[in-house]
Amino acid sequence: MAKRNAFYAQSGGVTAVINVSACAIIKTARDHGDRIGKVYAGRNGIIGALTEDLIDTGKESPRAIDALMHTPAGAFGSCRYKLKDAAENPAQYQRLIDVFRAHDIGYFFYNGGNDSADTCLKVSQISARMGYPVTSVLVPKTVDNDLPVTDCCPGFGSVAKYVATSMREAAFDVASMAKTSTRIFVLEVMGRHAGWITAAVGLADDADTPIPLVLLFPEIPFDEARFLANVDAKVKAFGYCCIGVSEGLQNAEGKLMAEAGSKDAFGHAQLGGIGPLIATLVKDRLGHKYHWAVADYLQRAARHLASATDIEQAYAVGKAAVKFALAGRNAVMPAIVRTSDNPYRWKIDSAPLEKIANIEKMLPRNFISADGYGITLKARAYLSPLVRGEDYPPFKRGLPKYARLKNVAVPKKVGIEFKI
Amino acid sequence: MAKRNAFYAQSGGVTAVINVSACAIIKTARDHGDRIGKVYAGRNGIIGALTEDLIDTGKESPRAIDALMHTPAGAFGSCRYKLKDAAENPAQYQRLIDVFRAHDIGYFFYNGGNDSADTCLKVSQISARMGYPVTSVLVPKTVDNDLPVTDCCPGFGSVAKYVATSMREAAFDVASMAKTSTRIFVLEVMGRHAGWITAAVGLADDADTPIPLVLLFPEIPFDEARFLANVDAKVKAFGYCCIGVSEGLQNAEGKLMAEAGSKDAFGHAQLGGIGPLIATLVKDRLGHKYHWAVADYLQRAARHLASATDIEQAYAVGKAAVKFALAGRNAVMPAIVRTSDNPYRWKIDSAPLEKIANIEKMLPRNFISADGYGITLKARAYLSPLVRGEDYPPFKRGLPKYARLKNVAVPKKVGIEFKI
Repeated sequence: MAKRNAFYAQSGGVTAVINVSACAIIKTARDHGDRIGKVYAGRNGIIGALTEDLIDTGKESPRAIDALMHTPAGAFGSCRYKLKDAAENPAQYQRLIDVFRAHDIGYFFYNGGNDSADTCLKVSQISARMGYPVTSVLVPKTVDNDLPVTDCCPGFGSVAKYVATSMREAAFDVASMAKTSTRIFVLEVMGRHAGWITAAVGLADDADTPIPLVLLFPEIPFDEARFLANVDAKVKAFGYCCIGVSEGLQNAEGKLMAEAGSKDAFGHAQLGGIGPLIATLVKDRLGHKYHWAVADYLQRAARHLASATDIEQAYAVGKAAVKFALAGRNAVMPAIVRTSDNPYRWKIDSAPLEKIANIEKMLPRNFISADGYGITLKARAYLSPLVRGEDYPPFKRGLPKYARLKNVAVPKKVGIEFKI
Repeated sequence: MAKRNAFYAQSGGVTAVINVSACAIIKTARDHGDRIGKVYAGRNGIIGALTEDLIDTGKESPRAIDALMHTPAGAFGSCRYKLKDAAENPAQYQRLIDVFRAHDIGYFFYNGGNDSADTCLKVSQISARMGYPVTSVLVPKTVDNDLPVTDCCPGFGSVAKYVATSMREAAFDVASMAKTSTRIFVLEVMGRHAGWITAAVGLADDADTPIPLVLLFPEIPFDEARFLANVDAKVKAFGYCCIGVSEGLQNAEGKLMAEAGSKDAFGHAQLGGIGPLIATLVKDRLGHKYHWAVADYLQRAARHLASATDIEQAYAVGKAAVKFALAGRNAVMPAIVRTSDNPYRWKIDSAPLEKIANIEKMLPRNFISADGYGITLKARAYLSPLVRGEDYPPFKRGLPKYARLKNVAVPKKVGIEFKI
């Protein structure tokens, strides 16, 4: 079989372990030098392909590629840029295929979530129609954990570990202060529509370390009176209460409670600020002194506290993506299949992109306790294995040592400029 | 010499390593069982003494005491409660001495900051005047790093490590997203009056890992036009900009920019919210998409990322406090004396409380760069050793395993109730 080049791009919000998948793809491709020539990466994701701004990963030393294993965020840059419908903007797909053809790209590895699955599927279909078939594989990545079919999404386990650890630590702090000072601590976490990260906060509280916790899921419409009664009961029983709230918390009318008015490039509302809102509500109604934290990017960039399980899976999906492509499996995604909770066992299977594109997997109702403010044993059984294991980055002078690549540009061949 | 009991209390905001000092005091006291009988801890700090709610640390196993080494926050509870002037409220001091006398307490170890130094000094003076002299030693603790005489304060090094690591991680995230999305990231950090923690954010950027960083110190009055020009220049040069802002940022009139209106028990304003204010300002004036984080308690409770140097020093001051007390040194504090920057070397000396009580050590102006938005080499030389070394807590099922003590109450002897 002829040797072809590969194109790899990172898409959407980055994670603590997306570079682990990049590392796996590059190393596995290098192991198959007979079939895969160069691995090019898009500078700033798919925009790099559209503008013919490709990075030659072959210019990076094996040591630099290895360092991706412990470096958070997107080493080649990501973007929030969704390709339009092919019917609406055929020029975009035409351009993509032109660039792929010019650089002899036969494999397209797209590292992203729901939107990326859609793009990946379309590239596979349109490239075939255009007579230049590109084997397209989605490499799953999203801290929101909302991709269907796969048991979990690389990136999520590390965020889960971060938010559960952070809430446990803050709870110890509040417990110390509650006698005369702070009694309420609110932690706002990510997760636009699905409450997976909110559920992970629930792991902070367990049999060894009970913590009075109230969770506000995006799936459960906010009921002020019931919420306040729950918090009040916790403060009365324990002297303090910790609240984990999703940035996507909605009111009874289905409206986001922290709607900031601005939207991102995908038309999603830009969120933030429900944490302080909830904290001041509790203060106004129950009179307790509060503190609140909004972890924001800290939660998804925290490679220093990544889950070893998550890292292992991020590597596995990257490696499987290359193997699938070489086996001729097109328009698929390596999915993580859980075969046992305890001991935790999993394997990689392939899932067709038709079953993934644009579908969000919500938190099942039976993961949320009957009262709507906690997690069930079923949720714990699901979540607990995903945060297991520590895998610390190297430190230098007390701070984590993260890699920056050279990111050498590939000489342009198409030449014609393309406005995005 | 007669055997006397010791009283230990934690005061004010807790830290990731205050329990390390507690561990050192208890273990060192146990090593001197010929001179020190019981070590009693105040439940919720000095309030425990006033209400005769003492905890018998002798009921804890050696293993439980050892676990304090890796457990954040205050294991016996802390409080925000400042004793009034003795002239204004002599009953408080009378009561304290009554409780000390009833429980044969000859040593008072107070683990706190500026306010606690004041209390500790007064207890030493008044107990002597009342004919029941109590040897009183302040064990330094404050994330604000604002105690005079000592080179640094236990608790600060770990916060410094946390904020510098978090900013570095977030910067990698923003750099990935900046092409089409977030260009501005704002991290709000603690530090009411002194910009030590803000300065520590500056460590995120170094020669190995350059990061476009703008710091807003509480010492430098906010100048909107100059700040925006600085941010604009960074975005133009690097494509993105990270901003570290102190909760105590003031305007030109010396007014807190995020004044929340409410005050804590010491009369300090309760802060929070300058992070989002700065972020929206940049968005409104320069048009860049932003994200912001407020780490709040997460930064001071983050035992999972504590500085090994900080832990070593927290232990050293606890141990020295007991040694000082046994040597008859009264109304003193073990101070950390730096003898060399590189290699970093330090020792413990004793400092009189008169030189410490109620004095705040501000960040020297020559630690802040000429333009007011960065740190100098002098600041780096000071800060860098304090964040060095990792000392991870044990993990169980993917989360840090923190200890909770039994905290068994000592039977009351005074009996009379005392209203605080």
